[in-house]
Amino acid sequence: SRARDLGLAPGGGTPGPTNSIVDVPSVRVGQVSLHEGTRLHTGVTAIVPDTVDRAGGRLPAGLFVGNGYGKLVGATQLVELGEIETPILLTGTLSAFRAADALVSYVLALPGNERVESLNPVVGETNDGHLSDIRSRPITEEHVLEALRTATSAPVAQGCVGAGTGTAALGFKGGIGSASRQVDLGDRGSCTVGVLVQSNFSGTLTVAGVPIDAQEALGADADHAVPRGNSCMLVVAVDAGLDARQLRRVAARAVFGMARVGSDFAQGSGDYAIAFDVGAASDIPDTKLNPIFFAAQEATEEALLDSLFLATTTQGADGHVKHAVPLDFVIEKCAMAGVFDR
Amino acid sequence: SRARDLGLAPGGGTPGPTNSIVDVPSVRVGQVSLHEGTRLHTGVTAIVPDTVDRAGGRLPAGLFVGNGYGKLVGATQLVELGEIETPILLTGTLSAFRAADALVSYVLALPGNERVESLNPVVGETNDGHLSDIRSRPITEEHVLEALRTATSAPVAQGCVGAGTGTAALGFKGGIGSASRQVDLGDRGSCTVGVLVQSNFSGTLTVAGVPIDAQEALGADADHAVPRGNSCMLVVAVDAGLDARQLRRVAARAVFGMARVGSDFAQGSGDYAIAFDVGAASDIPDTKLNPIFFAAQEATEEALLDSLFLATTTQGADGHVKHAVPLDFVIEKCAMAGVFDR
Amino acid sequence: SRARDLGLAPGGGTPGPTNSIVDVPSVRVGQVSLHEGTRLHTGVTAIVPDTVDRAGGRLPAGLFVGNGYGKLVGATQLVELGEIETPILLTGTLSAFRAADALVSYVLALPGNERVESLNPVVGETNDGHLSDIRSRPITEEHVLEALRTATSAPVAQGCVGAGTGTAALGFKGGIGSASRQVDLGDRGSCTVGVLVQSNFSGTLTVAGVPIDAQEALGADADHAVPRGNSCMLVVAVDAGLDARQLRRVAARAVFGMARVGSDFAQGSGDYAIAFDVGAASDIPDTKLNPIFFAAQEATEEALLDSLFLATTTQGADGHVKHAVPLDFVIEKCAMAGVFDR
Amino acid sequence: SRARDLGLAPGGGTPGPTNSIVDVPSVRVGQVSLHEGTRLHTGVTAIVPDTVDRAGGRLPAGLFVGNGYGKLVGATQLVELGEIETPILLTGTLSAFRAADALVSYVLALPGNERVESLNPVVGETNDGHLSDIRSRPITEEHVLEALRTATSAPVAQGCVGAGTGTAALGFKGGIGSASRQVDLGDRGSCTVGVLVQSNFSGTLTVAGVPIDAQEALGADADHAVPRGNSCMLVVAVDAGLDARQLRRVAARAVFGMARVGSDFAQGSGDYAIAFDVGAASDIPDTKLNPIFFAAQEATEEALLDSLFLATTTQGADGHVKHAVPLDFVIEKCAMAGVFDR
Repeated sequence: SRARDLGLAPGGGTPGPTNSIVDVPSVRVGQVSLHEGTRLHTGVTAIVPDTVDRAGGRLPAGLFVGNGYGKLVGATQLVELGEIETPILLTGTLSAFRAADALVSYVLALPGNERVESLNPVVGETNDGHLSDIRSRPITEEHVLEALRTATSAPVAQGCVGAGTGTAALGFKGGIGSASRQVDLGDRGSCTVGVLVQSNFSGTLTVAGVPIDAQEALGADADHAVPRGNSCMLVVAVDAGLDARQLRRVAARAVFGMARVGSDFAQGSGDYAIAFDVGAASDIPDTKLNPIFFAAQEATEEALLDSLFLATTTQGADGHVKHAVPLDFVIEKCAMAGVFDR
Repeated sequence: SRARDLGLAPGGGTPGPTNSIVDVPSVRVGQVSLHEGTRLHTGVTAIVPDTVDRAGGRLPAGLFVGNGYGKLVGATQLVELGEIETPILLTGTLSAFRAADALVSYVLALPGNERVESLNPVVGETNDGHLSDIRSRPITEEHVLEALRTATSAPVAQGCVGAGTGTAALGFKGGIGSASRQVDLGDRGSCTVGVLVQSNFSGTLTVAGVPIDAQEALGADADHAVPRGNSCMLVVAVDAGLDARQLRRVAARAVFGMARVGSDFAQGSGDYAIAFDVGAASDIPDTKLNPIFFAAQEATEEALLDSLFLATTTQGADGHVKHAVPLDFVIEKCAMAGVFDR
Repeated sequence: SRARDLGLAPGGGTPGPTNSIVDVPSVRVGQVSLHEGTRLHTGVTAIVPDTVDRAGGRLPAGLFVGNGYGKLVGATQLVELGEIETPILLTGTLSAFRAADALVSYVLALPGNERVESLNPVVGETNDGHLSDIRSRPITEEHVLEALRTATSAPVAQGCVGAGTGTAALGFKGGIGSASRQVDLGDRGSCTVGVLVQSNFSGTLTVAGVPIDAQEALGADADHAVPRGNSCMLVVAVDAGLDARQLRRVAARAVFGMARVGSDFAQGSGDYAIAFDVGAASDIPDTKLNPIFFAAQEATEEALLDSLFLATTTQGADGHVKHAVPLDFVIEKCAMAGVFDR
Repeated sequence: SRARDLGLAPGGGTPGPTNSIVDVPSVRVGQVSLHEGTRLHTGVTAIVPDTVDRAGGRLPAGLFVGNGYGKLVGATQLVELGEIETPILLTGTLSAFRAADALVSYVLALPGNERVESLNPVVGETNDGHLSDIRSRPITEEHVLEALRTATSAPVAQGCVGAGTGTAALGFKGGIGSASRQVDLGDRGSCTVGVLVQSNFSGTLTVAGVPIDAQEALGADADHAVPRGNSCMLVVAVDAGLDARQLRRVAARAVFGMARVGSDFAQGSGDYAIAFDVGAASDIPDTKLNPIFFAAQEATEEALLDSLFLATTTQGADGHVKHAVPLDFVIEKCAMAGVFDR
């Protein structure tokens, strides 16, 4: 169940219709998941705003690097030009470059791009090597093209799907999560903030402020190995007409939002947020940005919770297992802490 | 009372003897507090590592800017050279430049500095304008010199002192806080991480994960105005022999630690952390930094709590009041949430 | 004489009416120069765009740090918010903080600013300690206020004036220089790029590609001491409606332009450029920015040349002298190299 | 001929034995060039320091982004950890991701790396699409492996080789260039600075300060099209024991050095420098870095000149041609300017 269905939605904000990133107009998501026995649990997640799914499209974008221990492809041009010119892909660490190359294939082949000779594909990654044979770099061009081509505005599948198929977070099975907020901007109208996360970081799961110790929740016999190469990729979509500088400020709040679910910001965790805006440039002043900043934090928290709450126990090779969060345990702990009485 | 004395110390780490930044060898703190009726509540806090309190002294240092809405003096040279060459001052926003000038006076006058013609004073600030007549820029050279000259390794005074005399945080009276951790580095020995904070930011006070609503805690009649220009200055001292790049990574964790007490990372909050190291260069690899990173987060959380828990209700002009956190209320809320039973 | 009058103007661009930064609409410059025998040669230069000379005014701005060995006041907020909210001051290194404080006085006193409690003064500096008693920090609030109040759109005084009164560059007496370019933006109309420099850096003066060796030009007996703390502050004004990110890109070109006159980019030189835009936001795409980038480089080169060509030999204490560039020598060298025949 | 053989070596520094980056101990270079009629002129250049050519090897490294319009792979982790953990590859823009993937293959296969699950390949690129069918992404894993495996300390092949096979610069055929300097560090001993460049940027070729107009040099009929996507990748190797922060400062000087040969720093040029150090950590203070900074600028200038001087006229598809610099013309112009009489 999603956190919200358990009465554990963070904050007081109002989610959009699907409570996911596709609530932001024109944003679609496509995912491909790979499983092969215990050997492979990996995949690709594509975040596809319509504008960059056609020739010459560009969207303002900002990047915030909380901890740059990651292989994010496309960082410097995104920052210099303040834009994305391709969909954003997420995948497993060592597959990032094949995915980037496949993304180039996809965009070069878009009608109208016949003469394009330069492209800045944006690909984030986290390390799913604990549960999946990451060294085999199993993501092919076909997987990427499928994720891109099947991207849809249907509610985002969460948990063990796409780039989250094999990830682990906070001692449990992690995955893909997504949430959204409808934001009142006063005399500036309203906008939607959507977040999609690929959770794969360490720390102590914290739900509504209540720490959920993995060992206690799962029992002493469970696999508690802390995977190497933890990370978190956060993608934020907005339709407020923000510019690149402002979007970097929004992205920062997504990274800060990781703390709310108990990230310990370990040194080996590549923690990145990319924010982009699909709205018409609006010249909204920074003094009006707080509602967006708060929504980004709240939606990040909820997306991260959902990435775990919807994940299922997954068995990798070498006896590695990552367990789903036992939701009963969480509910009981939260009940004891009075979370439901607030 | 300090959070720790109430059973509310965050994390499992071991503090140093004074549980404050002066537990880091050779680090001293001096503070001057100004009060004038309801008009003025401001001051200066000086963090004085011995090495930069003598001619030609330099210490490796790193800066992390969580939100650059502040007037931090000395930022670019600190980053370029990866060092501080003066003590670090904290004060109220509009007094930062007079304080920087006074810091120059102090360092130029150190024996052996008779021919120094260039200096990079480092001065942080947060806005105490809600409770104090900030426009009068009341900090004089004498105040700064007194803070520097009286700096001592005695346990750091906390709450409404020094640069925290007039600050407000999370709906309550804020101030100066400090905490420390003794950190086991395995085959690398051990070190101490000390944090000093000037708290002045917005959000919902969160103690051990339990939200403390200011309005509920203080009653509907209390002054709940959110002051303009919220911010947080965080200073981290270590004696692990880290280099400037690593110290920037440590500083990042201090900023992330703000989330643990409920910062909402508002757009107008200048949230900065400076970390410096007083130890001999140690070539410690980044893979060994986690204990320091975790200590920095934990000590930041505790220092922020103490900055509030030790502050006292303060009356400013125009009927402005910022109330001390009612600790009984906090204890009751935490008890109800089972915090003391964990 | 100005470089242009000697036939040594760089590039093929067209300067504005005064060939200085005040050609950019609404930009004024005020300067105060201090001399006291051989002891003091220093001053203040104020760049005052009308918009930030009134209550609540803000202009988009970008900063590029070529080498952050300097005390630039106001850097982090300028970057975070992408704007300046005060005029920009230049002065001698150790006076930067007094100047910043005086700038605060000035802006707080502007009609309509009676309730302002936060301000980000921007002050650049270079080190004039070779020719002036920098340790005495001679710049007072009165000097700053005078520079601000007398700021005018008259052609900018160059050479040994204002913040350039005591500076030295490339082995010769340096100072303040300024130049401008009228830029054709095609279907985007046109704009003006204005540059003002405070030159104080090392290297070999290079005019139209011809190296001018200071020792050969001045004779072996001249004072060739390389002053400590070299630096260069560059201020670029545009009226093209650029945003902060784009202005950072413009500022980078000003720093790169230093190479054209022979800067050696020494480690102790604080080389910074700030670019701001006084035009209405125009949404000009980055693909159209080259004419502005090239103009910024060209105008920087010319402003740097003029800062030297218009400076006069200046005698400091302790027998220090910095000589004016012997223009006859330059002309002869350039003639021999065929510069005038191109 | 190399610039030096023509009497056109920049600066007064002393090159190493091969006057190329392999003069830095343990640094090898491997290159693979692809030609296919007029359709393909591209390749790969691998810079291989021994330390990162074995399991677990790491070298301190710094990155300076002059203009981030490029697809540099590996940027954020290089900056966060201040190191490279793989050789550095250069290639054509759209092949960068295949090259990165192949580099992963290579490093994963190194003896001792059998369990490595995370890697940060570093790949720079410039756009050779004017002369080569860049959209076909012709670089295969085999090409990359060959470049890596054949890397040698023999003098670096320059001009139309490796990643420079199809590049163009300053109106002429560009390519790969390399140079080195032996640097006296006083009481710190000495070191070698080596630079390797992939030149592909616009501007006016400038030799010893003398502008060489491409149209005049080549005649009005020559192909003067300015290719899209100009860029410059600069790799600097040092053996001085610098840390990552210092290496970023060194890298900056390489970018600044581009100005000396007439780069116009156009908006579409991805201008990056990466500096790494193969020496034992030396704790050399920044105040001693000027000789290294100056050597980096000088060697960059010479490497850029050689990248053009050793390139040969190359015919691409669609009638595109890029001509070699006519050296007689350059010599004549330089002679007229008195360059050889200095």
